[in-house]
Amino acid sequence: MKSHREELWFETPNRMDFINITQQVEAALAKSGIQEGLCLVNAMHITASVFINDDERGLHSDYARFLEKLAPHEPTSAYQHNRTGEDNGDAHIKRQLMGREVVVAVTNGALDFGPWEQIFYGEFDGRRRKRVLIKIIGE
Amino acid sequence: MKSHREELWFETPNRMDFINITQQVEAALAKSGIQEGLCLVNAMHITASVFINDDERGLHSDYARFLEKLAPHEPTSAYQHNRTGEDNGDAHIKRQLMGREVVVAVTNGALDFGPWEQIFYGEFDGRRRKRVLIKIIGE
Amino acid sequence: MKSHREELWFETPNRMDFINITQQVEAALAKSGIQEGLCLVNAMHITASVFINDDERGLHSDYARFLEKLAPHEPTSAYQHNRTGEDNGDAHIKRQLMGREVVVAVTNGALDFGPWEQIFYGEFDGRRRKRVLIKIIGE
Repeated sequence: MKSHREELWFETPNRMDFINITQQVEAALAKSGIQEGLCLVNAMHITASVFINDDERGLHSDYARFLEKLAPHEPTSAYQHNRTGEDNGDAHIKRQLMGREVVVAVTNGALDFGPWEQIFYGEFDGRRRKRVLIKIIGE
Repeated sequence: MKSHREELWFETPNRMDFINITQQVEAALAKSGIQEGLCLVNAMHITASVFINDDERGLHSDYARFLEKLAPHEPTSAYQHNRTGEDNGDAHIKRQLMGREVVVAVTNGALDFGPWEQIFYGEFDGRRRKRVLIKIIGE
Repeated sequence: MKSHREELWFETPNRMDFINITQQVEAALAKSGIQEGLCLVNAMHITASVFINDDERGLHSDYARFLEKLAPHEPTSAYQHNRTGEDNGDAHIKRQLMGREVVVAVTNGALDFGPWEQIFYGEFDGRRRKRVLIKIIGE
């Protein structure tokens, strides 16, 4: 069994942002030399997500609006978590709804994707450096 | 390490539907000959889910009503994604809430399940042919 | 390839509860002797979750309030699932929102975590004995 580990770093200009990281994951897979296996991609921070969906700007606006409606950033006093001095209680909820991680099949050395699947980093408490982990195992 | 890959195809009669695929996943596992490992089952389309829960018709109605309340199909103009000519903006949100994939432990050649766990394909933009991927790795 | 399987048992005093199980998962990993691989941790019951987030009491209150608002326990007659004689229709929805499982990378014999990642058992229909499965594969 082979394994490969890589980190990606992000610092988004906005509190909420969606970044397509498919090419970076493909590059990590190529480096790994793994032909058949599983590829885990996860946010290493608890106010961020990794998820798979469409690379379409309107959709990302829809996600942002939906999440903001369910768990609004303001008023920050609405979240008990913010009594610790944080202001990101909403971001911890948004991240749970969008998910922490994806597991992607590796087949013939490629990410085994349907026609529109793309991997995104979802940031809900941005404007500081944060990481994504890629771990690939297989042969 | 062994690996096994299989696709399942669906075309549901309704926009939203839940289909129990546990037996098909068990059949794929039997074919693989894998005794110990991990089994990934994921939707290959971005308006569909694979999830694990109970095979109970009332529960599935509850899921449908809950999702429709949070992200209603109508009015389709409420979603910026639909400006691309699509009418499935709601389905992209429903799929995120229910999840893209499950990872199931394989132990002694069987899916290592609790008493009520069953695997479902969740469709949110049906009436066309769509796929699920099964990828099993182990020994 | 090595594999290791372990079950954790819980009986929470409340209907809804969040329990940090990171140390138990680390202990299972140490027993496995696996240095590089993937660690799956999943609820074996369909009204419970395993998820990764912060070990902060205020945040857990925020999660509980958010979930109760979206899918309130009362009135139990609001859920078709409860016509089966159950009263946990809400718990099946809460569990889907928080997720069934996490997959964690194993690197150098440790859970490969960001600074604040902790693994939680999330219970939404407690006061009876229920299980979590840990399955680790690798080398």
